[in-house]
Amino acid sequence: MSVIEELMAALGNAVLTGDRITERYRSDASLSGRTLPLAVVRPGSVDEVAVALKICNAHGQCVVPQGGLTGLAGGANPRAGDIAVSLERLSGIEEVDATASSMTVLAGTPLEVAQRAAEDAGFLLPIDLGARGSCQIGGNLATNAGGIRVIRNGVARDNVLGLEAVLADGTVVSSMNKMIKNNTGYDLRQLFIGSEGTLGIITRAVLRLRPLPTGRLTALCALDSYSEVVTLLKRAQQELPGLGAYEAMWESYFRFNSEADGLRLFESCPAFAVIVEQDLQGHDAESERFEAFLGRALEDGVIGDALVAQSQKEAQAFWRIREGHALDRLPLLLNFDVSLAIGDIGRFADECGQALRAKFPEAHVSFFGHVGDSNLHIAFSDPGATEETIHAVDDIVYALVGTYRGSVSAEHGIGLLKRDFLHYSRSPAELELMRRIKSALDPNGILNPGKVLGSV
Amino acid sequence: MSVIEELMAALGNAVLTGDRITERYRSDASLSGRTLPLAVVRPGSVDEVAVALKICNAHGQCVVPQGGLTGLAGGANPRAGDIAVSLERLSGIEEVDATASSMTVLAGTPLEVAQRAAEDAGFLLPIDLGARGSCQIGGNLATNAGGIRVIRNGVARDNVLGLEAVLADGTVVSSMNKMIKNNTGYDLRQLFIGSEGTLGIITRAVLRLRPLPTGRLTALCALDSYSEVVTLLKRAQQELPGLGAYEAMWESYFRFNSEADGLRLFESCPAFAVIVEQDLQGHDAESERFEAFLGRALEDGVIGDALVAQSQKEAQAFWRIREGHALDRLPLLLNFDVSLAIGDIGRFADECGQALRAKFPEAHVSFFGHVGDSNLHIAFSDPGATEETIHAVDDIVYALVGTYRGSVSAEHGIGLLKRDFLHYSRSPAELELMRRIKSALDPNGILNPGKVLGSV
Repeated sequence: MSVIEELMAALGNAVLTGDRITERYRSDASLSGRTLPLAVVRPGSVDEVAVALKICNAHGQCVVPQGGLTGLAGGANPRAGDIAVSLERLSGIEEVDATASSMTVLAGTPLEVAQRAAEDAGFLLPIDLGARGSCQIGGNLATNAGGIRVIRNGVARDNVLGLEAVLADGTVVSSMNKMIKNNTGYDLRQLFIGSEGTLGIITRAVLRLRPLPTGRLTALCALDSYSEVVTLLKRAQQELPGLGAYEAMWESYFRFNSEADGLRLFESCPAFAVIVEQDLQGHDAESERFEAFLGRALEDGVIGDALVAQSQKEAQAFWRIREGHALDRLPLLLNFDVSLAIGDIGRFADECGQALRAKFPEAHVSFFGHVGDSNLHIAFSDPGATEETIHAVDDIVYALVGTYRGSVSAEHGIGLLKRDFLHYSRSPAELELMRRIKSALDPNGILNPGKVLGSV
Repeated sequence: MSVIEELMAALGNAVLTGDRITERYRSDASLSGRTLPLAVVRPGSVDEVAVALKICNAHGQCVVPQGGLTGLAGGANPRAGDIAVSLERLSGIEEVDATASSMTVLAGTPLEVAQRAAEDAGFLLPIDLGARGSCQIGGNLATNAGGIRVIRNGVARDNVLGLEAVLADGTVVSSMNKMIKNNTGYDLRQLFIGSEGTLGIITRAVLRLRPLPTGRLTALCALDSYSEVVTLLKRAQQELPGLGAYEAMWESYFRFNSEADGLRLFESCPAFAVIVEQDLQGHDAESERFEAFLGRALEDGVIGDALVAQSQKEAQAFWRIREGHALDRLPLLLNFDVSLAIGDIGRFADECGQALRAKFPEAHVSFFGHVGDSNLHIAFSDPGATEETIHAVDDIVYALVGTYRGSVSAEHGIGLLKRDFLHYSRSPAELELMRRIKSALDPNGILNPGKVLGSV
């Protein structure tokens, strides 16, 4: 029997072929995928994932795991001849344990569904990102999702207590731990988290929940220099125990996006604008502490001005500038996602901006990011851009990241699109060790081949 | 040349043989080691670690890595014919980066030395445990150390930004990342952390630092039941953003240790005593919030009584009871270190206590632990104990942990002493995957063989 016949015999209607394979399965949100998969398997249970992989492995059939397809690195794009395994039917909350502060979810559960279930039980699920409506927990973990709330509760990896994954050969490895402390051998969870589906397919997880904030205080601050951005960050970390977000915007980014919203919030456009947000907990009013913190920063000249949101609507207006949807209207927008030691970010942005503007004088170049998480985003759009331009921009940005010993991907992952730049961030010894691990776990190389490490 | 001759030719005086091997290298703090190593290599640089392992690997010579030898699971004990690689000379702080909130240290640095360097720079290094004076950073990471401060900042694994390790074949894998977010391939750090020296020898690390608390508020609370212990924990997590410790003591533990100190803190000995501690940050006085929190818990009947320490000395008196050094005087004291879902701990302790007392009616059995971290310790001492008794106690405790799907080691690790009980906490599929990883990284099986997984 062919692999498809065998899959259909074992899994019946869970296997889509021919016209039943819709456009959806062609690409993630980078829209870089050009090829439909040979077939799509949509398992309805962990056992069905295991059966599908066992059959594919026996046939040497390559498999691309797919979640909500909101990735930006091409990690879920099929290559010609790949079979997609979509987790979309493996969805649901299995348990919320209020005493353990944990929830158990299937991998295909949309993030927002899991967030709501946590909130209904009085908890915060700290994993959050813009694509929350369509991305899935399995994909969030496979790519070690970041987002804007990392400064308080860490990246996805930091919020996983237990994990279950299916190996290439169909072995189900279940480590559904609920404990905070568990030192019984190797941490298998962390191996699968962030491996972008190349070591196994994540099927279930025990996620860690946190107390639900009772409210938020939001301020938008104007600052003169990157060194003041760092000073304010340090003070916020020291003085605001519930610091929930710290988002910096460089002048060109802030100007472009506030003008697009028709807002003029400061008398003159500051060199840096920073959103500082404090999560509230418990019974006491914290607004005095928050305003005293801002007052001291003003007095000491760390900030030039500060606006405290007086309503949720005002806070949303600050956040809309930060989200920068106006940029999406620019032609061929590139959005980089790099990280650098916090002390290096200011110099890096200066150098990177100069290098890009020297080569593309007409281009929009702007910087913004989760500075407290060492994460910088770069927006680039050139009206006269070509495919070649885009490659040149990649080369300029990533080579500079390499000289700063930074990361070419802070949160989006490597997938297909950043594979050629991985060497700027990881040494030959690291890459060789990753290949060894890949070979040990997936000796036939069927799991998402070509992604992250290229051909092994 | 023999392996020893080759090591001496390459590393000279760094190699100890014969009479130069002192008793120190025989055992960790479990005092279970009986054998001196064949030789001790004390590398003074990362390169020397690499050279030593390369030579040993070529000879198929087994190696046991040694740090401060404060472990309790026999993980650093040599077997007959093993060569010990002691990291004691590879010591020192390479950098404190105040902007990145990180410090770079060599593996042999004593924990307390690193803690002081962090404090001198205005930071808290959140890794902390009783053996801080003699344990070393490399060992802390190799065993994923826990301790009493986990509730706020996580276990050792959560406080490592970058790591360098030498593989069995002498390859130096350096991932000295300083960034909070870095999604460039597999997380190699987490593979070495907690692997107890069986996958590589950790040589350097970039540790994450946190703001130094400006003070602490400490209370000792009396509670009637385990369910109230959980209720108070939930409230503390919700209402005290700087919750720094939450330590529960069951009646027999609290009675034994407070009587040993000649203290009678409550009118009658409560069923549970809990230390709640809040770390202070910033400029504002938090004591009102803390006392209001305790006041509400009293009003609502969650706690029966609460003593707030009025001085550091009073706080230390509470902690002395929790540290329980009086127990050390008991004959053949066994100290278990297990973890269970927080909601299960109360029932587990009841069942475990009953089972142990049924078999050993004369024994001291008491419970205490980091309940917020799902970590329970059990103290056992029987005046008439024999080797056989001790095995029976192990069997009773660990088999019960297995039925609760708990962990046989919350923080001390598996080493040699818990190897036979690992199957209670990890499935055959998990153990097989660990073996596959071990074989991939250390194909000759020279790194700490016999530990964690037994013979591979």
